This record gives sequence, C-alpha cells and structure tokens, in this order.
Amino acid sequence: MSVLLAISGMPLEVWQERLSALLPGMSVFVPGEPFDRRAIHYVVAWQHPPRSLNGLPNLAAIFSTGAGVDHLLRDPDLPPVPVYRIIDADLTGRMSEYVVLHCLLHQRGLLRDLQNQRQRRWAPDLLQPAAQSVRVGIMGLGVLGRDAAQKLVNIGFEVAGWSRTPKDIPGIEIFAGDGQLPAFLARTDILVSLLPLTDGTRGLLDKSIFAGLARNGRLGRPVLINAGRGGLQNEADILEALGDGTLGAASLDVFQTEPLPADSPLWNHPAVVVTPHSAAISDLDAITRRIASQINAVQAGETPEGLVNTEEGY
Amino acid sequence: MSVLLAISGMPLEVWQERLSALLPGMSVFVPGEPFDRRAIHYVVAWQHPPRSLNGLPNLAAIFSTGAGVDHLLRDPDLPPVPVYRIIDADLTGRMSEYVVLHCLLHQRGLLRDLQNQRQRRWAPDLLQPAAQSVRVGIMGLGVLGRDAAQKLVNIGFEVAGWSRTPKDIPGIEIFAGDGQLPAFLARTDILVSLLPLTDGTRGLLDKSIFAGLARNGRLGRPVLINAGRGGLQNEADILEALGDGTLGAASLDVFQTEPLPADSPLWNHPAVVVTPHSAAISDLDAITRRIASQINAVQAGETPEGLVNTEEGY
Repeated sequence: MSVLLAISGMPLEVWQERLSALLPGMSVFVPGEPFDRRAIHYVVAWQHPPRSLNGLPNLAAIFSTGAGVDHLLRDPDLPPVPVYRIIDADLTGRMSEYVVLHCLLHQRGLLRDLQNQRQRRWAPDLLQPAAQSVRVGIMGLGVLGRDAAQKLVNIGFEVAGWSRTPKDIPGIEIFAGDGQLPAFLARTDILVSLLPLTDGTRGLLDKSIFAGLARNGRLGRPVLINAGRGGLQNEADILEALGDGTLGAASLDVFQTEPLPADSPLWNHPAVVVTPHSAAISDLDAITRRIASQINAVQAGETPEGLVNTEEGY
Repeated sequence: MSVLLAISGMPLEVWQERLSALLPGMSVFVPGEPFDRRAIHYVVAWQHPPRSLNGLPNLAAIFSTGAGVDHLLRDPDLPPVPVYRIIDADLTGRMSEYVVLHCLLHQRGLLRDLQNQRQRRWAPDLLQPAAQSVRVGIMGLGVLGRDAAQKLVNIGFEVAGWSRTPKDIPGIEIFAGDGQLPAFLARTDILVSLLPLTDGTRGLLDKSIFAGLARNGRLGRPVLINAGRGGLQNEADILEALGDGTLGAASLDVFQTEPLPADSPLWNHPAVVVTPHSAAISDLDAITRRIASQINAVQAGETPEGLVNTEEGY
C-alpha cells in the first residue's frame, strides 16, 4: 500500500513526513524517487503535470489537496478512479474570513479611508451604508458558500445565493439556474464568486454579468469579489467595467494566469485589491490529517466526504 | 414642552426637521433661535459648549446623540438631571462591523498584501494564522463590546473580555478588575478598546498595557484597535511601542486631538490604519427615532434604556 504525492508548489518533504507519520502502514513517495508503480494505490495531487498519473495499474483513488478539483479534471488522461476533494473546517473557515474581510472592506470604504490617510485628510463619511443596507450575492453554494453566507448574515448583511440547482439555506434568499440569474444579479451590490471552475462556469464573470448587477444601491457602484478560480473571470472585462463605472471596485484572489503577470494593470488599479491566491491556504496539519482520514476510510471500504462528480466537475 | 438641540458638527436643520416630525406635540429649537428657556424640558446634546446648558429651570433630561457621554460629563456645570445615551442596534452594528473588519485586516495581513500589491509582488504567505489561533481581547463589555465579541466568536476568533466588574457572556472568557488585567493582556494578540472615557480610563492605553500583551502569539507582535475614545490612549507610547516592536500594528479611529493634526506621525506610519472617528457614525433616521422614543418614555413617566450613571461616567 503506497501513496504518491503529485503536488506542485508546496514543500514536498514536509508533506511526505506528515503523511508518513499519519499513515503508519503505508509508504509515501514523491516524484523522482524510485518506487514500484504497481504499489501505488492512492495519489494526493495538486497541479500535477497532465498525463503524469497514468500507468498506475492499482490506483484506487485520487485526493485533491484543495477544495477545487479543476486542476485534476483538466488532465485528459486522468485515471478513471474516484476523486475526492478536501472538505475541512480549517479551509472553510479561512475562506469565510477572506469573504467577510473583503465584503466589510468595500462596504466600509476602507480603500477610501486608506487613500485619505495617505493624504493626511480627515474626512468622516457621514453617509456610510450599514451592512443591513448592503446586499451580498454569493455565486456557488457548496460548503464554502454556505459558511460564508451564514457569517455574512451574522454581521448584518442582506445575503442571497445563486447556484446551478436550488438549495435551502435558512436566512438566505436562493436563486437557481440561468433563469433566475438576472434577478439575482439585479439585487446584488457585492458579488462574491465561490464557484468551481467547470466547462459551464469558465469565463462566466464577464461584462454581461457585471452589467446585470444592482445600480443605485447603497454602495453606489457594485463590487466583485472572486475567491473561486481565475478561469471564472474575464480580466479585460473587469478592467473595462471598472473604467466605465459598471463596477466600483474588486477584490481578486485568483487570476487567469497565476502568479499574476507583473505587467497586469490590475496590480496598480486604485479600486482593485490583489491577493496572491491566498484566500484559503489551509493549515498543513489540518489538510494532511483530513487526507489521511479520507485514505483510511477508502481502505476500510467506506466513502469519505468530498467525493467529486467528475461529470459535473465539482 | 420644548427640546433644545445642543449639537456640534452635525447638520442642525436636518436634526430639527426630523425630531420635529417625530415629536408632534413639541417645539424643537436650535441655539441662536429665540426661545423661552423655561419651556425647555429636554436637551439633545453632542459636544455642547461647557456651561451652555445651565439656566434651563425646567430641564428634565439630557440625551446624548452618541453611545459615549464623556462629551457631556466634562461640563463642570452640567445640570443635575438624568442623562441618557444612545443604545441603538444600528450604532451597535456599525461598531461591530469596524471591529470585525480591523481584526480580520490584521489577522489576515492585509497591510502586507497591499504593500506587496504596490510592489507587484506575488507572495502567498504559507503560514497564515487562522482566526481560531488568534486571541482577541475586548476591553469594555457594554452593549458594544458584547455584540462585537459575539460576532468575532462567530468568525472563529478566540475572544476574551475585560471590564471593571465581572460579566457573564456565553462563549467569552471574562476577566475583571485591575487584579485580572495582567492575565487578560498576557493572552491577547489583538487588543480592542471599546471602553468609555472616564477618570479611571483616561490614558489607560499606554506602554505598560502594550508591554503586557501576548508575546510569541500567532500574529508575532500584538495589535491595538482603539474605537473607544482618543483620551484613552497615549499616542507617544503607541508610536514608541510600534517602533521598538512591542506592538506590531494598530487601527485607530479616535485620537487625543480630533481631527488628528496634520503633523501627527500616525498618518504615514506603515503599520497604522487611521480612520476619522467614523467607526460608528450612525444613521440619522435611526438615531432621531431612538431619541424621540426615549423622550416619549420620559414624558410617560418611564425610564428608557441608556440611563447613565454619572458617577461611574458611563
């Protein structure tokens, strides 16, 4: 029983050490080490090179180290075994921290406050909108969207959600499917994207979506927060919308190309907050414990949480 | 039955119009207008000139337009009538928005992210502390402190509170009195001040307090958030503590002198967020409705919420 770590951009040795300690009966290999491909039953993957996971005849499951699995499903030769993604309270909580922080940042006009501060300008805004008068709309109502929605409601925001299929979340107005998308956008001052990247959502956040958002809300112009995947957004359209006033501001954690190229105009746009795909970098301890627990469940013949519908893409 | 509006820095005509509409049986006067001083039963005050409220023989109550009443009690000739302050869900909610925003801002390293952005630097921090590992300590557990505490707990922070006398708030570790102040500070990574300004709290936020905060917490160096009153803080000590690493950062909404003088080094300190005493500027509609309701209660012989203990100062 062996595990192969096919992860990029993370400290492999630390992962190997942690997972080995958590899975005492198994060997944990990293690419480049000599190992018997027939012994690999499980792959733990993040941004693996496409086609690098074939030729593993006894592979039983693949585990994504993140909540999104687009990095796996883009591999045209992905082995036809069950794929699991992380559902972890630590990761979920971190994503909600990001969403609440950036909703409050825009609702409270923090960019304006920071600009006034740089100019040593004391300028209290006597017409601040309270959270109760600001309508947040969350696209994507999986584990992450639900948790963020509940926390935003607790702060006082008026929250609605949109997803492909209808959901039932107490205290949240739900819109579903293409038919209800225009009504969802029209009532939304701050659009929060937590969608998975699939064939159906690629490029969804474009000028037609931005043009459908609320006009004359308490924020003046609507705000975009994308903490899902960069492939969801059209960055040329975001810049155009910011330029012509269709959007008032944006917080972007993800980008069409990552790292964001140094010549992107997003970097120094005064109404854009750029964060380096760090909205929900989870604690290594929490993630490795969760994956070890998923592997143990599969070993025991159970189906752990996080099973991906590879047809739907999430 | 008449009301005198003794408020500074706010649009008097709008206040007069709103309160007149809400109190149809009364006349509402502003300073400078001719009125019979004997007819004034109620004063609505914000930063009135000291000694300007005497000579009102039938005065029955004074209403503060804000949650703090230090602006009233500093008047050595304040008439000896009951003083009421605002307890309003709108104001409370706005203060909690500020507290949650600035706790998340420091916990998530937003100032670092914004600095990286200005330098077009893609630098994900792989060792971010989750809210669960960051300990917020709230000084002042009145209506504002309790609400902020509950919302911070909901986000995931580990929250404790300190007040002069013991309180009981579910989910919050409580410290009380001078004797428990050192233990409270020693477990606190982010210190949030929501204290009233009284003889006992003036200048409290000084170098000895900062030196008592947690060392080696998940944030590295502790953070100060003061949304109470500027008179609580020693700004020279704050700057010294930021300079020698006793404090890592600060968000200050209030200052010893307001507006903050243009030559204050706080304006351009890279680890300080300056906001212009706007943490909880409440909605005029909400505040005037609340004060009208307090006046009607006093008229009916009742004691509305918000009665101030003028000996204690809050």
